[in-house]
Amino acid sequence: MRVVDGRTGACDQFPEAVFRGRRARLEARMEALRLRFVLVTKPVDVFYLTGFRGSAGALVISPGRIRLWVDPRYTLQAREQSRGAEVIETRKSLLRAIGGWARRARPSVVGCQDAHLTGAELAELRRESQGSRGARWRGVGAVLDELRIVKDRWEIERMRQAGGLTARVFGEVLPLVKPGVCECDLAAELEFRMKRGGGEGPAFETIVASGPRGAWPHARASARPLRSGELVIFDLGAILAGYASDMTRTLYLGVPRRRARLLYESVAEAQRETVLSLRAGLRGGDADAVARHALARRNLERYFTHSTGHGVGLEVHERPRLARGEHTALQAGAVVTVEPGVYVEGYGGVRIEDTVLISESGPEILTPAAKEPWYTG
Amino acid sequence: MRVVDGRTGACDQFPEAVFRGRRARLEARMEALRLRFVLVTKPVDVFYLTGFRGSAGALVISPGRIRLWVDPRYTLQAREQSRGAEVIETRKSLLRAIGGWARRARPSVVGCQDAHLTGAELAELRRESQGSRGARWRGVGAVLDELRIVKDRWEIERMRQAGGLTARVFGEVLPLVKPGVCECDLAAELEFRMKRGGGEGPAFETIVASGPRGAWPHARASARPLRSGELVIFDLGAILAGYASDMTRTLYLGVPRRRARLLYESVAEAQRETVLSLRAGLRGGDADAVARHALARRNLERYFTHSTGHGVGLEVHERPRLARGEHTALQAGAVVTVEPGVYVEGYGGVRIEDTVLISESGPEILTPAAKEPWYTG
Repeated sequence: MRVVDGRTGACDQFPEAVFRGRRARLEARMEALRLRFVLVTKPVDVFYLTGFRGSAGALVISPGRIRLWVDPRYTLQAREQSRGAEVIETRKSLLRAIGGWARRARPSVVGCQDAHLTGAELAELRRESQGSRGARWRGVGAVLDELRIVKDRWEIERMRQAGGLTARVFGEVLPLVKPGVCECDLAAELEFRMKRGGGEGPAFETIVASGPRGAWPHARASARPLRSGELVIFDLGAILAGYASDMTRTLYLGVPRRRARLLYESVAEAQRETVLSLRAGLRGGDADAVARHALARRNLERYFTHSTGHGVGLEVHERPRLARGEHTALQAGAVVTVEPGVYVEGYGGVRIEDTVLISESGPEILTPAAKEPWYTG
Repeated sequence: MRVVDGRTGACDQFPEAVFRGRRARLEARMEALRLRFVLVTKPVDVFYLTGFRGSAGALVISPGRIRLWVDPRYTLQAREQSRGAEVIETRKSLLRAIGGWARRARPSVVGCQDAHLTGAELAELRRESQGSRGARWRGVGAVLDELRIVKDRWEIERMRQAGGLTARVFGEVLPLVKPGVCECDLAAELEFRMKRGGGEGPAFETIVASGPRGAWPHARASARPLRSGELVIFDLGAILAGYASDMTRTLYLGVPRRRARLLYESVAEAQRETVLSLRAGLRGGDADAVARHALARRNLERYFTHSTGHGVGLEVHERPRLARGEHTALQAGAVVTVEPGVYVEGYGGVRIEDTVLISESGPEILTPAAKEPWYTG
């Protein structure tokens, strides 16, 4: 198994056929929607379909042609990274250039990413394409989101490596976790080691939240020093070759009292049961219910204030969701987090999270860090 | 001068009067626009107006009332951080909650941030507020962007600290810059030291681009080892207590040949002249022209493929812009980058950038790292 070096730029390690395959799947969906043209502007989707990893680009996919407009900052990079796309440099705004294309090509309908383009950008697009006699811009963002749900083996391999890196880095930093050390210094260590270990950086701002701060599910790491007799939440993830991972562990500094033990064991049980329940065909809402029921058995459901999980891939939050009301069936090849937690105001919180691959042969945890509940620092 | 600790959460160190003052300025603008209601959803603007730093919140400002809707993840944090706002927890989507408010309050027009809300979000807002008999949502994003251009003394102090941290960290890492070290290890060192030094993290993914990779203005740090006889671009910035900085330095490993020397000296001169030209009343386009003319004197203008600078503050790219066609006059209290560069395909690039405060007493460089051109590693 060749180890991907996340630092060398990523896409050129995917064979060109991967991008062709993705575009073919998109084109099949477009045909079903009777769409001849799709404008893709969200950077991760442009990357997914072409291999170009700049922060701005406008891709138009039409029968037999793939055109990628970029501004002069990205011309060289787009030529080097993109696979099978014509690169067109523009000195105008990208949307103005697309408007110009629409005036010339006169498409009647163009799919666009209305969950990514802002209202102001959509207005610009309409204004700039006015001469095209009524080109309509139809939101089809969900088509692209859905395309990315099932990961291919190349992607899975990268996500295994991203998850492995995250788990390894956490293990390395564990010996530094002790009373007196401040949250942000631990966060800095974790992020530094992710990057030194081959990651491009953290997938999100690393959370280290101790004591009462752990009751904020989205606390940032602060200058607060860790104290004995408190819970500490670590929520971290690396990006490697474009792909994210997401993992949370909770530690207790010292010998745990009854309350901390109850909270920890309840969350651990809920998390384990939910991971084991994951299989193709299960609905996202059902997976969420597994976690919720497990916590309800311990009378802790009211402290679980968010949903159970979310898809991970090129984005750290993507489809599918494991949440109440999600009726779509999970698919083999999807990668999701499982992250139940309990948050008690004024006391602290416990959350345990893994990134998990759903496969025909059962769930595979991609973030294999130990879950020893207690740590006497 | 008290040193702000960027790691303790930020907002509670601004006096409450600061937030009241900002809201009063917004209300004056609203009155001029005959707007009784404004919906603010962009997180940095919610932070600017209330002190709440969560990643999601919906703020409605109306005569005599400031209401902040958050989801349950953020209830405790919003109560603790926000200054002078009523915090309302909702388990629905935030936009659905706002729609419900509009159905009850029946505003005729509500200002909203159409350059932040996506097309899909605006559609949701319209749908959810239908019962309000024709509430119209009018884009007023620019009003908030403009509010943030002139920094107050509290903000300037933080930006000085963010810039000082960035400059100091670069100086610390300089001795590690030598042939054989890979770009990404230097980027990891820089980001680690920013965080250990009190920053919340990098304001953007740190760029270290050596040799021909320097010709990509937005290259990421890769696994490429530095080599003697090449230019290396470092583009970095820390976030401290919410405020960003942005700085670029270019080094040459070894004794520079004529070409490298010409490129470096030309860019340095263009940068110096542009910084010195900055004063209140100068138009953004004129500042851009100073850099462009300086490079044109050396016949290098065609290698300068981007604009000269941008505002910095809560965002690393904000108003005003120093770019062709910008007719607005710069104001005292604005903070901008000055970052001319030249990019030669196949060879490499030079960029030199400072974050600069425009003040009545002249330009002040907030990123005071040395600009020794040559470094014999």
